[in-house]
Amino acid sequence: MTGDTGGEDGRGDGGAYTYEDAGVDLDAAEALKERLGSLVASTRTEAVRAEFGSFGGRFRTSEPGAELVASADGVGTKLKVAFRAGRHDTVGQDLVNHCVNDLLAEGAVPLVFLDYVATGELEDETVHDVVAGIARACRENGCALLGGETAEMPGFYPGGEYDLVGFVVGEVAFPEIGTRDLRAGDRLVALPSSGLHTNGYSFARGLLFERAGLSVDDPFPGEAAGTVGEVLLRVHRSYLDDLAPSCRAGRIRALAHVTGGGIPGNLGRVLPDSLDAVVDVDSWEPPAEFRWLWDESGAPRDEIYRTLNMGVGMIAVVREDEAPAVVDALEERGAGAFVCGRLAEGDGSVRLAGRD
Amino acid sequence: MTGDTGGEDGRGDGGAYTYEDAGVDLDAAEALKERLGSLVASTRTEAVRAEFGSFGGRFRTSEPGAELVASADGVGTKLKVAFRAGRHDTVGQDLVNHCVNDLLAEGAVPLVFLDYVATGELEDETVHDVVAGIARACRENGCALLGGETAEMPGFYPGGEYDLVGFVVGEVAFPEIGTRDLRAGDRLVALPSSGLHTNGYSFARGLLFERAGLSVDDPFPGEAAGTVGEVLLRVHRSYLDDLAPSCRAGRIRALAHVTGGGIPGNLGRVLPDSLDAVVDVDSWEPPAEFRWLWDESGAPRDEIYRTLNMGVGMIAVVREDEAPAVVDALEERGAGAFVCGRLAEGDGSVRLAGRD
Repeated sequence: MTGDTGGEDGRGDGGAYTYEDAGVDLDAAEALKERLGSLVASTRTEAVRAEFGSFGGRFRTSEPGAELVASADGVGTKLKVAFRAGRHDTVGQDLVNHCVNDLLAEGAVPLVFLDYVATGELEDETVHDVVAGIARACRENGCALLGGETAEMPGFYPGGEYDLVGFVVGEVAFPEIGTRDLRAGDRLVALPSSGLHTNGYSFARGLLFERAGLSVDDPFPGEAAGTVGEVLLRVHRSYLDDLAPSCRAGRIRALAHVTGGGIPGNLGRVLPDSLDAVVDVDSWEPPAEFRWLWDESGAPRDEIYRTLNMGVGMIAVVREDEAPAVVDALEERGAGAFVCGRLAEGDGSVRLAGRD
Repeated sequence: MTGDTGGEDGRGDGGAYTYEDAGVDLDAAEALKERLGSLVASTRTEAVRAEFGSFGGRFRTSEPGAELVASADGVGTKLKVAFRAGRHDTVGQDLVNHCVNDLLAEGAVPLVFLDYVATGELEDETVHDVVAGIARACRENGCALLGGETAEMPGFYPGGEYDLVGFVVGEVAFPEIGTRDLRAGDRLVALPSSGLHTNGYSFARGLLFERAGLSVDDPFPGEAAGTVGEVLLRVHRSYLDDLAPSCRAGRIRALAHVTGGGIPGNLGRVLPDSLDAVVDVDSWEPPAEFRWLWDESGAPRDEIYRTLNMGVGMIAVVREDEAPAVVDALEERGAGAFVCGRLAEGDGSVRLAGRD
């Protein structure tokens, strides 16, 4: 997302720099955040409309017209799993879907996507597979692949490795999502993730490859179905098509895309100072791969919910009386949805309620 | 630029993939280009308006309003020079100015910029310096730094190293530049580069650091003033402010931003099939650093002009009778400008005339 500085995560838009990463010195990070924030603020122009921005930056042209949103993202060290598995046609989908979800959290639908693929030495098949994945996800999201950069940088990346960055520009289609008119009593509707999405991969790789000594072809330990490679490479799901009907109906008041920082880190972004989000972590069972990673790590509950999405990839804030219709609409599409909590009077905190 | 696949260079916009890189197998590259082109074409939507696009991709929103242009770029292996010199506050300027020049070549002025900085381990001072350079160039170009992504990816980059990617969105302000109404007899007005800009660094590093065994603190060999590090890190110049008055006056018919592929590779992008560009390479003396690199490499003339910008960073195509006014306007600003050639009947080729 475009919203954080830190481990496999983004940096703020339009003046606000936030930081979420359990593994980083938070005092130093806070200081860096403030310094970068002043730099960003020094560039502000009339084009910027980012008062509420956090998942993407809002801007406009000099003429009347649609409000625009842009966001930049990488895939992080999920790429390392793709390198191990020799499979390069899924990470492009991860990248596009991640960007599209970030736009949606700002009430925007994608228009165009640009990619950057950097390698030490250009390998045609690999680049083709990466771009094929990008193109597939662009088609699925109704977004044009407008262009890109394929950089061959000798000495930068070992053979077979690459970095992959995506940029998306969209237009605001659901303005009420961006204005975030939230109230105590609003319900939190959770949409399941399809796996780890694009966060927590350094953590998961450490546990699976280093501590447990597994390879990508081994069965994923515990009860998850598939090999380590298959489970870890499951494509970051796009929520655009599933959520669009409820967005068009005006029933979605805010959306939190659960990426780096997990549910607490991302739900916190959409809260006003006067409201808390109370998430009932007993309202769903984390899928088997999350349970194994949690057990194996021995991490405290609050830490694991900040490191991994734990099975929830997007949270919609809806009015209490509209929650059943939103859940039904999502269930009818086979999108999976359930109420996982509510907003309450508070101070902008995200509270995890339920088992420890 | 967004316009090539190859060594430190870009990839096409809106369906057209072109390729320029002396160091890459051109047959294989041609095959990859066609395959990527079909992938891009498969994603085309109504938002895309890229018939003429080559330095940036054109698109529009669903509402009437300004036509938009987006472009993605990296700094390439100029970063390796920054690493050697321990100087990180200039590469961000290179990146922004490169992107801004690409937009200008499509007739657009920048609105917002997003950056991606990826490191193995986050080093606060380095990230701060990089972003400070980006912010400075954004201010200078009247462009807002809308957001970005700072990715910490353990195992991806050695200590102290990073990759840096930029993404710019602008609006078309000078539409006649994008339509490229060119005629035989039009003059080519060259604007000096400030150095190597952001291309040819693998070539230059090989000659200076490996073959000549120099360090960044050694004086640049030959007659160039400054150390190797100073000469190589000179900031890629932005041409926006210098060219804007002539653009506003409607006197600029096309612009070629001279990046990867040099003058032939980039001037060729703006030519119709019926016209050649004849560049008189005797009309200027390549600056001392280019002369040393050329002498040292022993490269044939046509090859060196494809590898390095040879002292010309932007070429404007103007009507013959307007050329003096354009040159005068640029000279008055201290921008440096001279007529370096003309368009002639032909087949879309760029011909270098003058000394071998």
